[in-house]
Amino acid sequence: MLSVKTILDDIAAGRTTPREALVASRIAIAGADAAIGAFNIVAELPDGEPQGPLAGIALGVKDIYDTADLPTAYGSPIFAGHRPAMDAALVALAREQGGWVAGKTVTTEFAFLSPAHTRNPRNVAHTPGGSSSGSAAAVAAGMVPAAFGSQTGGSVIRPAAYCGVAGYKPSFRLAPTTGMLTFSWGLDTPGFFAASVEDVALFVDRLLGRPLAIEAVDAKSLRFGLYRSRIDADMSADMRRAVERAAERAEREGAAIVEIAEPDPMAEGRDAHGALQNFEAALALRHVLNAHRDRLSPILVEALETGRRTTPEAYDAARTKAHRARKAIAKLFDDIDVLMAPSAPGAAPAGLASTGSPAFNKLWTLTGNPCVNIPGATDAAALPLGVQIIGRFGRDRQTLSVAAWLANVASSL
Amino acid sequence: MLSVKTILDDIAAGRTTPREALVASRIAIAGADAAIGAFNIVAELPDGEPQGPLAGIALGVKDIYDTADLPTAYGSPIFAGHRPAMDAALVALAREQGGWVAGKTVTTEFAFLSPAHTRNPRNVAHTPGGSSSGSAAAVAAGMVPAAFGSQTGGSVIRPAAYCGVAGYKPSFRLAPTTGMLTFSWGLDTPGFFAASVEDVALFVDRLLGRPLAIEAVDAKSLRFGLYRSRIDADMSADMRRAVERAAERAEREGAAIVEIAEPDPMAEGRDAHGALQNFEAALALRHVLNAHRDRLSPILVEALETGRRTTPEAYDAARTKAHRARKAIAKLFDDIDVLMAPSAPGAAPAGLASTGSPAFNKLWTLTGNPCVNIPGATDAAALPLGVQIIGRFGRDRQTLSVAAWLANVASSL
Repeated sequence: MLSVKTILDDIAAGRTTPREALVASRIAIAGADAAIGAFNIVAELPDGEPQGPLAGIALGVKDIYDTADLPTAYGSPIFAGHRPAMDAALVALAREQGGWVAGKTVTTEFAFLSPAHTRNPRNVAHTPGGSSSGSAAAVAAGMVPAAFGSQTGGSVIRPAAYCGVAGYKPSFRLAPTTGMLTFSWGLDTPGFFAASVEDVALFVDRLLGRPLAIEAVDAKSLRFGLYRSRIDADMSADMRRAVERAAERAEREGAAIVEIAEPDPMAEGRDAHGALQNFEAALALRHVLNAHRDRLSPILVEALETGRRTTPEAYDAARTKAHRARKAIAKLFDDIDVLMAPSAPGAAPAGLASTGSPAFNKLWTLTGNPCVNIPGATDAAALPLGVQIIGRFGRDRQTLSVAAWLANVASSL
Repeated sequence: MLSVKTILDDIAAGRTTPREALVASRIAIAGADAAIGAFNIVAELPDGEPQGPLAGIALGVKDIYDTADLPTAYGSPIFAGHRPAMDAALVALAREQGGWVAGKTVTTEFAFLSPAHTRNPRNVAHTPGGSSSGSAAAVAAGMVPAAFGSQTGGSVIRPAAYCGVAGYKPSFRLAPTTGMLTFSWGLDTPGFFAASVEDVALFVDRLLGRPLAIEAVDAKSLRFGLYRSRIDADMSADMRRAVERAAERAEREGAAIVEIAEPDPMAEGRDAHGALQNFEAALALRHVLNAHRDRLSPILVEALETGRRTTPEAYDAARTKAHRARKAIAKLFDDIDVLMAPSAPGAAPAGLASTGSPAFNKLWTLTGNPCVNIPGATDAAALPLGVQIIGRFGRDRQTLSVAAWLANVASSL
């Protein structure tokens, strides 16, 4: 894979130039994408030598981010060839920092569950996950060092886990959603992919101009909460072992491991996710539901119709449950620094008929806490398994730093 | 003015048909808009007889709401003729409920401060206020019974006050912003105009399918907080008298009036509004700032450049202040039911060079509380003066009901 840190270090040391780094990405895309299908469209290389903190970084941009110079179809045939008026905020910011939008990456239809054609670079007979399918796959296949995704249920952490790359979902509203397709405004969160946790932290640090690059952590003072949820029975045996091993390695390095039994309000928050999401999606996508219903997938129509039938009272009750879940998780961090949990039920399912389950992600999307997928573990078939670190709201740098530390000590999971 | 309630009652009683009501609006626009300039574009009348809870209601839609069938230019020459991919959520919802989008109403540039050409129907030598200039003026001139606006600083309550119509800014996130231009995602709030408070409540009740239509209030148990802010010295003498008289009338009917001295965290919240707004606007509009700077007004460029220079740390500090202001206002409602305050510093300024000051609105936008402008009072020159009712977060129906009651008892302000 292409490393953000290596590229930026090489440029800083004069071992390469930004333009050479972009050309390398462009060649990698040309070589690999026919077999993977990560990109909808690939951009022309910019003229001259890029400048800025992200100069030399080629980006895959999920096709729900508006781009004024490239078609943006939101994964739907309804919007084939659509050209938005403006770049999304994060796209404009990446360009200002010198990054190059290498192309638009494949998303599932409106970033929901209907699968697209992208294949998993670790095993092309398996799904890369979704909805940020193309972004995770483009990084995993070594085509780009970084990519933009988004998560409303489990659309960043899950494909990162399935593809064996680092994924980072920031604290809710840390990064702007302006110019991204809205599915559920209370849940939609931008997310980022890179080869390693250190790479993704450095990338977002430079993108947002916020101190997010990883720092050293003191293992002896670290307290991990091993999160035992009501749905743990849905985890594969391999996934369970990967989490236990990560905890063991952390403990061996001197960190404390605290067992956390899922508080009731958090289980109820997970159950409320669907009502929140569908009610909001049925408003956000009301135009397509009413004007283009016959061009939507059955699974999306069902979610939108469920949302339309959800009463405001039921929606308000779900918001109250979300609020209680956020209070409950904040309280957990009185005793621990970060939570540890599976990133997905297991490895990527075979075939492309499903993008897998977001069940192990949606609670953390709802609470808005920062999440990082740590790649490195694999199952018996050598498919990646992801362990997820969930941090305190607003403590994104700490979350990334601990995740990077754990990725390092557990590198032979 | 055209009354939502009268139109819907007349239709229900068979005194008119939805189509006849729309034709009446269409004729009123044709007759009045040349002198006012409220509309950018007027739509064709729909075929047949509309159906649904809003059938017969012609809507003015602020030109920052996306419409798939009508150009949406966001008040900027950069986007002249732009056709969005989808209807905004509220537009799609209004159409589903049987409402007719009569046309797109004039907005200031990107809903900020640079004035447009719309005139105040109460006196065409004065500004209608902004940024929802056309929507307020279209209702005031009797062209449409209801209109959509938005408020990031004071863009609904202020033009409602200047034009002598009812304006309603709901609790933050009660109504979806999807498909509206984003200026500041933490502040942008949809808003609504109609002739009377009763009309605007009935309109939004039918639009959102939420119980918002006014209810009877028990005057004897009502507690009004008369809000004394740090900026009250900036109020005109007429405005001050209008607020005092409204309080006197309420007291005469048996309500309690409680003097509220502005808590420090709320004054600090008002001061933090600019940093929040500009930082977010500089991200949301980064594309236009970087790609179309020479076609932006100087006042907008200044705000966006100020936002770009604002550090993430300063922005985070402003968010903390906003959070504290929200806690402080929630506490005020332990002792009162609603707050009463001026809707603007005074009547509409003369000329079209400024849309007036949002100073008396931005605190309530930042705290997210529901606000209603009560029309009826006038100054010595017969220009409208607005009194504002601010309710408890989430208690929109109570806020509207109390405002309608006060509008009634104070109708000869």
